[in-house]
Amino acid sequence: MAYNLLKGKKGIIFGALNDKSIAWKVAEKAYEEGAEFVLTNTPVSIRFGELDELAKKCNTIVIPADATNMDDITHLFEETMKRFNGKIDFVLHSIGMSMNVRKGLTYDVANYDYFKKTLDISALSFHRVIQVAMKLDAINEWGSIVALSYVAAQRSLFGYNDMGDAKALLESIARSFGYIYGRDKNVRINTISQSPTLTTAGSGVKGVGQLMDFTERMSPLGNASAEECANYCVTLFSDLTKKVTMQNLFHDGGFSNMGMSEAAMNVYNKSLEVDE
Amino acid sequence: MAYNLLKGKKGIIFGALNDKSIAWKVAEKAYEEGAEFVLTNTPVSIRFGELDELAKKCNTIVIPADATNMDDITHLFEETMKRFNGKIDFVLHSIGMSMNVRKGLTYDVANYDYFKKTLDISALSFHRVIQVAMKLDAINEWGSIVALSYVAAQRSLFGYNDMGDAKALLESIARSFGYIYGRDKNVRINTISQSPTLTTAGSGVKGVGQLMDFTERMSPLGNASAEECANYCVTLFSDLTKKVTMQNLFHDGGFSNMGMSEAAMNVYNKSLEVDE
Amino acid sequence: MAYNLLKGKKGIIFGALNDKSIAWKVAEKAYEEGAEFVLTNTPVSIRFGELDELAKKCNTIVIPADATNMDDITHLFEETMKRFNGKIDFVLHSIGMSMNVRKGLTYDVANYDYFKKTLDISALSFHRVIQVAMKLDAINEWGSIVALSYVAAQRSLFGYNDMGDAKALLESIARSFGYIYGRDKNVRINTISQSPTLTTAGSGVKGVGQLMDFTERMSPLGNASAEECANYCVTLFSDLTKKVTMQNLFHDGGFSNMGMSEAAMNVYNKSLEVDE
Amino acid sequence: MAYNLLKGKKGIIFGALNDKSIAWKVAEKAYEEGAEFVLTNTPVSIRFGELDELAKKCNTIVIPADATNMDDITHLFEETMKRFNGKIDFVLHSIGMSMNVRKGLTYDVANYDYFKKTLDISALSFHRVIQVAMKLDAINEWGSIVALSYVAAQRSLFGYNDMGDAKALLESIARSFGYIYGRDKNVRINTISQSPTLTTAGSGVKGVGQLMDFTERMSPLGNASAEECANYCVTLFSDLTKKVTMQNLFHDGGFSNMGMSEAAMNVYNKSLEVDE
Repeated sequence: MAYNLLKGKKGIIFGALNDKSIAWKVAEKAYEEGAEFVLTNTPVSIRFGELDELAKKCNTIVIPADATNMDDITHLFEETMKRFNGKIDFVLHSIGMSMNVRKGLTYDVANYDYFKKTLDISALSFHRVIQVAMKLDAINEWGSIVALSYVAAQRSLFGYNDMGDAKALLESIARSFGYIYGRDKNVRINTISQSPTLTTAGSGVKGVGQLMDFTERMSPLGNASAEECANYCVTLFSDLTKKVTMQNLFHDGGFSNMGMSEAAMNVYNKSLEVDE
Repeated sequence: MAYNLLKGKKGIIFGALNDKSIAWKVAEKAYEEGAEFVLTNTPVSIRFGELDELAKKCNTIVIPADATNMDDITHLFEETMKRFNGKIDFVLHSIGMSMNVRKGLTYDVANYDYFKKTLDISALSFHRVIQVAMKLDAINEWGSIVALSYVAAQRSLFGYNDMGDAKALLESIARSFGYIYGRDKNVRINTISQSPTLTTAGSGVKGVGQLMDFTERMSPLGNASAEECANYCVTLFSDLTKKVTMQNLFHDGGFSNMGMSEAAMNVYNKSLEVDE
Repeated sequence: MAYNLLKGKKGIIFGALNDKSIAWKVAEKAYEEGAEFVLTNTPVSIRFGELDELAKKCNTIVIPADATNMDDITHLFEETMKRFNGKIDFVLHSIGMSMNVRKGLTYDVANYDYFKKTLDISALSFHRVIQVAMKLDAINEWGSIVALSYVAAQRSLFGYNDMGDAKALLESIARSFGYIYGRDKNVRINTISQSPTLTTAGSGVKGVGQLMDFTERMSPLGNASAEECANYCVTLFSDLTKKVTMQNLFHDGGFSNMGMSEAAMNVYNKSLEVDE
Repeated sequence: MAYNLLKGKKGIIFGALNDKSIAWKVAEKAYEEGAEFVLTNTPVSIRFGELDELAKKCNTIVIPADATNMDDITHLFEETMKRFNGKIDFVLHSIGMSMNVRKGLTYDVANYDYFKKTLDISALSFHRVIQVAMKLDAINEWGSIVALSYVAAQRSLFGYNDMGDAKALLESIARSFGYIYGRDKNVRINTISQSPTLTTAGSGVKGVGQLMDFTERMSPLGNASAEECANYCVTLFSDLTKKVTMQNLFHDGGFSNMGMSEAAMNVYNKSLEVDE
């Protein structure tokens, strides 16, 4: 069902790769809700993924941009504003990558060039996007910027490596810039802390399937899907959430506030019995 | 603008007194968004307030109920289900009262009969409402229950007295019951931590005007109004936020994550200069 | 090893029952560190437990008091001040009880008389103790009050029932009264959120053994023992932590900030394999 | 008064510059409590400051090291272990610097080379120190690593710039590495979130005097001094806090859990009256 929640709203969506991407689902849903937007990703991700197909479905274009490059981001915003003949209303940041994870270096032997790259791509890119938006005065009053995060920002998860630290930095940037952009232009900035999701990126994390079984049983409502995350994003882009800013919003079926569920404990206990 | 976000949804709204009440604004907004609901409050509040007027505007009825009385709540839910010929989808809990505040007893000399009454009315009432709803199986799958809270649950505020403790208990009940109701029936339970708001209840807190000046200047987007809170409630009742549960969601223009703003500091500093 | 950390300090220790009690270990450790104190518990707990034995070991007396009774608490403080010929320096509150748990009523069918009793005994008792202490001006400047809490105050745990809510209330009282007692008399108030511990009370929680296996494997340093908790308490009673107040301090081997450990995941996964 | 709390313990203390430094006070206090340690800072800070004087007082040596340079850190740990003929027990990390602050670039126009330098010096340096310690197996079981943080990691403070983000990253590193070092070697890692303190570094933040007036009046116990922070550090290095890990511990007179105090509100209100 569509509500026209985003009718007349324009935006930029970073980070869709293929139809498993959360950003992909956000684009589909935002389109359904009446928004117009530009899609973007790095040139290599565009080649590797299927972003053109999404652009066609959403009646829009792809403008390549490396979110660690100020010129690219500036070009992206300028072209977007030309296309829409004015300012935009929302931005989705769904970008994360760890070379330490890719190269199989565990956290205790992390390579610092990789670590800095993780922070640059997964967190500072968010600052860059916002800095460019402010400089160009590209976002309408009460516009909404959202980045996707994960509970590893608050709690240590085996194997999540330097991505947990990157998400903590990302969420801090949302608070820091949320104050400034809110104060100066009434633009809000939030992060959504989403359940583990089987995106192409998420699949790369070791043991993610088993972790998702655990979080599924721990969460009273189960894991949140990419589609459900897209629904939630749409409410945060809408005019109904104007005074929500600088927040990290858990969208996880309740996982973040669970200490132990009966369902997860039952699985765990079965293994203890086997031991005996 | 209306989106039909709550088309077909039925609910119960606790706690509207007059047009300054947040619950009043939620009712108006929910009605606008296509919901049907029953209004309720205690008999004395109904006499003192203007709930019948709201009922007329929203084409509905008032069923009196004392939220500390299980029979009253049961009667309310049974009548509501009769009226709608089935289960409901959302509940708003906007109830709070402190006899210690009313009687001018400060926190360090609190009267314990009053303290227990504060907890009973402001927090245990939420548990009662949910217990009755579960017993009667009164809420549809993916239904949504929301209670209104305040940042005093996390941080001590001069003059807020035992209401801070009551809100901490309220938020804990949302987590505790959120697990159980989610697990058993996929019903979600959240609290909204709203900016200080000049409702009839809020006006009673000593120095609330000056506190609101401070929070207004501390919050990059300013204080959230009752109308804006109603908008936010509507998103939480909608189908777009199905996997959000057990959360306390700050709706406060950013106040909760501010350490110090330039605007508030400027006012503060001016006073320091005067001192010298 | 002893350091004389509490040399010259006087106190009151609530809640020791037998040598499994955390309060028992705190008494032993505080005695070792040079403190003098009075032991207290309810008359029925004194009969049921072995508090006299502890008093002998610590060269002190037991003064019975029901922590929900203002006269009892007042008598306790007055007698203590007589004994020590002056004010005291520290208080330990280690009190909790849920009739809903005892009677096997799950959270969704909680009895409200029991619920109120849970809150009264486990949380409001803390307020009463502090109110009496303030009224009698019984605590020296920079004195320290500590109550024992549990992570169920923040996160829902299967089977922990209304005790989670009581702990949330307890921690809120520490913040609320911490502001006032700090402001007026420079007395600090904190809670320690301790690992699940096999005390006589803790043993009553269903499935606690298996939960403790889980938390043991989740916590990088393993569960914290009662003895270790006593050590931590002693630092909080000492003069080395004078500016720590209104805090909830996790003493849990790291559990509170873990999302998933390798050790716990391995046990969990084994059970998944068995399923297949 | 000294307790011999750190008798027999060896350590490394990073970041003392002059007698206003928190690290300086920690060194003095740790020495008083019986610890032996090596002092370190960058060559330029050693030239600029008075570290040799401290070394003399504490009967130890200074080994220069740039905490962003793995070779320097490795050399430091190797020399320290030679000096003490074995492993050490504690590390203090008190390092922070922002070129954006120094150059007067506000957060919204931050330079990214500077931003990365802020993160590298103020946060990644902590990871490097721990990585080296683990590689060299330089820390005894139950050893303790502490870094100094600030509430800007959780809340946005006017003028604190990218240091808030750096502190958020620092605290995340404490959690991430706290899991691993705890799991593998039972070494604990925590951060202390200290009141604003008039160190040489702290003095550089614009308006810090007025902010400190505000936090002084907001905190029921007033701001925590550098000496008091040193006392607190000593408890965290001691054997009495063995099961505390992965925590961020507020040492701030209660500020972090205050919403509004009477004392701060009075100053604020006076300014409002002046306006009228």
